[in-house]
Amino acid sequence: MLEILFLGTGASVPSRDRVMPCVAVRHGSDIILFDCGEGSQRQLMLSHFSFMKVVGIFITHMHGDHILGLPGLLQTMSLSGRKEPLIVCGPKGFGKGLNAVLSVCEGAIEYPLEIKDLECDETVRFEGFEVSSFSNEHNVPSLGYIFKEDRTLGRFDKKKAMSFGIKPGPDYSRLQNGESVGEITSEMVMGPSRKGCTVVYSGDTIPCTGLTEASRNADVLIHESTFSEKHLELAKEHWHSTAAQAAATAKECGCKALMLTHTSNRYDDKSILKEEAMRIFENVFLPNDLDMYRVSDNDVRLV
Amino acid sequence: MLEILFLGTGASVPSRDRVMPCVAVRHGSDIILFDCGEGSQRQLMLSHFSFMKVVGIFITHMHGDHILGLPGLLQTMSLSGRKEPLIVCGPKGFGKGLNAVLSVCEGAIEYPLEIKDLECDETVRFEGFEVSSFSNEHNVPSLGYIFKEDRTLGRFDKKKAMSFGIKPGPDYSRLQNGESVGEITSEMVMGPSRKGCTVVYSGDTIPCTGLTEASRNADVLIHESTFSEKHLELAKEHWHSTAAQAAATAKECGCKALMLTHTSNRYDDKSILKEEAMRIFENVFLPNDLDMYRVSDNDVRLV
Repeated sequence: MLEILFLGTGASVPSRDRVMPCVAVRHGSDIILFDCGEGSQRQLMLSHFSFMKVVGIFITHMHGDHILGLPGLLQTMSLSGRKEPLIVCGPKGFGKGLNAVLSVCEGAIEYPLEIKDLECDETVRFEGFEVSSFSNEHNVPSLGYIFKEDRTLGRFDKKKAMSFGIKPGPDYSRLQNGESVGEITSEMVMGPSRKGCTVVYSGDTIPCTGLTEASRNADVLIHESTFSEKHLELAKEHWHSTAAQAAATAKECGCKALMLTHTSNRYDDKSILKEEAMRIFENVFLPNDLDMYRVSDNDVRLV
Repeated sequence: MLEILFLGTGASVPSRDRVMPCVAVRHGSDIILFDCGEGSQRQLMLSHFSFMKVVGIFITHMHGDHILGLPGLLQTMSLSGRKEPLIVCGPKGFGKGLNAVLSVCEGAIEYPLEIKDLECDETVRFEGFEVSSFSNEHNVPSLGYIFKEDRTLGRFDKKKAMSFGIKPGPDYSRLQNGESVGEITSEMVMGPSRKGCTVVYSGDTIPCTGLTEASRNADVLIHESTFSEKHLELAKEHWHSTAAQAAATAKECGCKALMLTHTSNRYDDKSILKEEAMRIFENVFLPNDLDMYRVSDNDVRLV
């Protein structure tokens, strides 16, 4: 089970309602951020996610609206006494750029900070999941990311456990955690292991092969939707996607759910983007800032 | 008449209630910002001040919490089609640092942007007011600023105008704008010109001579108040002031009003800072984020 929290759903310029791009994915207590626009640390403070539990931050590209919240968040973690390591990744040139900004803002980072430039198709492992990069197509060097949960244990078969004489209580937990109780092994009472959930984060991009390949059978595709089809030419000019294009990718790739973000301020009524996408693909969400979703292998829903 | 809008009143780390330091002073339609912490552009969007009317930005020092909102605001102005010139100033090293950050965040600034390092005692002129720097004392190179309104026209004497046979309407406006109506000159119906208002912005500092000299007879002293007296040792260690120290400066300098800002998150109930200051100085304000004050030569009040 994953949780996806939309910290910022705007594009380029903030508005009264939407701040700059940042999406958090939580697995257990560990949090990954995708992009880190200005104001992300404040949004975390307004949410139920702790900024101290962030274990990795993945930046898609070096446009200001996607990165300007990163230096402040890194400094705040240090001022708040963080000791745990953190890895922050981005496309080619990211490390040099981030170090340049950190050297301008006085204030040391006093925890182990690994800053890493990624090529496409690189994978960073975490406990219970991994994040891989893929190439997308924007007007600057740019990546998208795949969050992939490890296979998870099967479902606990309570009836079977009772038939073996196991009583509810600590023994149930032992079996659920893979341990044995006497001669009864975990495998005897747990169903087959399940495929973990996959969440794809498009970054800023036009429709492209890299994104299509990455999105195959994803549980959730979080796709930029800067424009509506009526501004298709603008979308092409600025290397962005329309809601319809995002929906076409979700449909082609057999995704279970599509979440539209990075929407332009030009649309006062952003529901037109959702409607446009739903004419092509059924299961579309249009998150607001601070909306949170739970994702399991058979369900995606707003909490 | 000036308006002072507190965009961010926090210190070091944002909280649910307070974002990073930024104070706007409006004269006519022109706006000056003092410091520009992360999130300042969003706060402007939540206020009645237009970010497009900002004509000058004055940074006190290069700590992240005071500058990390600047690159995004400068880019947003450009994306919003600004053509008017803008001057941004800070202490020694500011220009080099800002240019380094802007070169990391892709996105050109397409209006005339003057970036200027200031020494202490330098003055930047605007139409109807000026901003001067003074030296304060923090743990990095640091400045405070004085906003000084030009002398303003005297009050219009309606009775005198009527006694000269002037009728209410356009002729009143002409006389109020310094023009003559027939043989009646503006001077004949306007009272003596008045001293403009002065607002002093301390920046982050311990009590020091530079600040005391700058604050003499100021209408408003906006003073950092990171700590309470019960944390005096911490204040010294981190080169910050207590509320009592801010009040002592306001009293010594004959200021009309003291506004406490840059308050530490350690105080859940920040009213203790106001109470501490009011034991020394009578007219103390403790602004919240987005509080606005009107300042005239005989009054300071929350709007």
